[in-house]
Amino acid sequence: MSTISISLDEIYDLAKKTLLFNGCDEDNANILSDTIMRAERDGSLSHGLFRLPAYVAALKSKKVNGKARPEVKKISPSVIKVLGNSAFAPMVLKVGLPELIKLTKETGVAVLAITNSHHMAAMWPETEAIAEAGLVGFACTSYKPMVAPAGAKKALFGTNPISFAWPRPGKTPVVYDMATAAMAMGEVMVAARDGHKVPLGTGLNKDGKETTDPKEISKGGVLLPFGGHKGSAIAMMVELLAGALVGETFSYETAAKDNNDGGPPRGGEFILAISPEKIAGLDWEKHSDEFFKKMQSMNGVRLPGERRHKNRLDKGPRKINKELIEKIKKLFKGSI
Amino acid sequence: MSTISISLDEIYDLAKKTLLFNGCDEDNANILSDTIMRAERDGSLSHGLFRLPAYVAALKSKKVNGKARPEVKKISPSVIKVLGNSAFAPMVLKVGLPELIKLTKETGVAVLAITNSHHMAAMWPETEAIAEAGLVGFACTSYKPMVAPAGAKKALFGTNPISFAWPRPGKTPVVYDMATAAMAMGEVMVAARDGHKVPLGTGLNKDGKETTDPKEISKGGVLLPFGGHKGSAIAMMVELLAGALVGETFSYETAAKDNNDGGPPRGGEFILAISPEKIAGLDWEKHSDEFFKKMQSMNGVRLPGERRHKNRLDKGPRKINKELIEKIKKLFKGSI
Repeated sequence: MSTISISLDEIYDLAKKTLLFNGCDEDNANILSDTIMRAERDGSLSHGLFRLPAYVAALKSKKVNGKARPEVKKISPSVIKVLGNSAFAPMVLKVGLPELIKLTKETGVAVLAITNSHHMAAMWPETEAIAEAGLVGFACTSYKPMVAPAGAKKALFGTNPISFAWPRPGKTPVVYDMATAAMAMGEVMVAARDGHKVPLGTGLNKDGKETTDPKEISKGGVLLPFGGHKGSAIAMMVELLAGALVGETFSYETAAKDNNDGGPPRGGEFILAISPEKIAGLDWEKHSDEFFKKMQSMNGVRLPGERRHKNRLDKGPRKINKELIEKIKKLFKGSI
Repeated sequence: MSTISISLDEIYDLAKKTLLFNGCDEDNANILSDTIMRAERDGSLSHGLFRLPAYVAALKSKKVNGKARPEVKKISPSVIKVLGNSAFAPMVLKVGLPELIKLTKETGVAVLAITNSHHMAAMWPETEAIAEAGLVGFACTSYKPMVAPAGAKKALFGTNPISFAWPRPGKTPVVYDMATAAMAMGEVMVAARDGHKVPLGTGLNKDGKETTDPKEISKGGVLLPFGGHKGSAIAMMVELLAGALVGETFSYETAAKDNNDGGPPRGGEFILAISPEKIAGLDWEKHSDEFFKKMQSMNGVRLPGERRHKNRLDKGPRKINKELIEKIKKLFKGSI
């Protein structure tokens, strides 16, 4: 793979130029470019510049409003709702997260319910922001059907990621962000390209049979939840929390309404924040630190988020796929 | 296996007589006997009379106070804490759950943080009670180390169950309650007894190697989390929520403090309740019902909790292991 080395500032500028050219206003372009730059910075490549063509597709089809102003409403003493007004999720989070954090510090626990938003980024930026404010963060969102419930042979659930972050004042939070599918479809496609097998339990072929051949899964097959029935139960919980609970669509409704332009469909997100200080008192920090030290002292164990936070320390340029850069440059020259 | 057929009332009476004889007062004996009866009624056998000898052991050693009066404190606008005062969990829940439900209906979301309690029952009784009040319920608790974090060869996590319940007014809630271990140690021991193999991923032998031989796991080996790294991340979350967040022990601290009388050790529990009506509005019920119908229409899919709720409809007697009944009778005759 041929790559080009570009700085983090250049990554931000490239994204911003592209978004401004394709219908974003300054505020929307800034926050989305920042999300993309941070994904590249942390080595979360599938959420970086790679997503830009899809963001542009959604702007061009006018499914997403690049000039949107999401509205924050406090709908009950511990619940904030943000009406996304067809914005990309990072813009929605920008206005919602500070309110969630403020409220949680007063009440001890609060929910941020997001509707009419288009999510295609990772979710660790939101749970990390909550943890950096000294709170515990949890987030989940659904998508389009790609995963069969345990026992079934057809897709109903999205890949339905969940993210959890635990605060460590003065240190990076412990944070994870993972699909409730056994494997993301992108990874299955990479395995197919490289001629690798995937573990049993990753997915079913078009006849509903388990297979280790990634091509059989990506072409007419279906993904499975991680961990069998138990993972399936968690994927179901995500459908309910990010769908009926916040007042947005389930994955199958999301797909039915989408214009299939390749950009992120309209959907909801559920975010929870909890204050360990309010609940456990001041000891919580020392106490959880002992636990993490215990985990780190075990051979073979890595704290979730460690690798990403290590990547972050490198302020230098990143190697970006040359073809991707060429593709993006065409997007803001208006030549396609 | 030789069994005796006894009615649900007789199961309750047997449990109550045993508990009263061994140091419980009327209130504590009533609520604990009800929990045991309901477990037998619903076919959740490993949480029914089977647990009674361990409850008695904890009463005899005075680790648990059978006359305890847990204290409810509202510690912030959306958080209730219950100091268990060394009670069995069902007694703690009896005083805490009504307060949690009342508060959640006002605020939209609330946490019940439980400390100094002894949990050995299932958790679906608490999440179901929340769902029966029209709210979404989530609960988790840790235990003693029995599960190795993904990548490790030694236990750090408990079997750390999580329970989730979604309300369906007029119908039984959709509810699950599952260990974050790949398999409960009890099931591994049953497989060992019956000469069955267990799936790879269930546990490691004493040398830290994966094995399908349940004997190698139960004798000096260790369980694994369900679903590899992803399940391990969820087991870690349970340690944090039921430990440092509520202000109680992690599994490894729980074990260090326990007197090993065979009864449930002292620990914490984290319970969350959320109001779909407050967040999504009145449509939530119809909306989630459509989703469940969609799930049920898929071949091979069962809604979590269905089998247990079907068992519940049978008001007749239950077949109880004869040896267990004999063992229990000795407990309240004081002859051991």
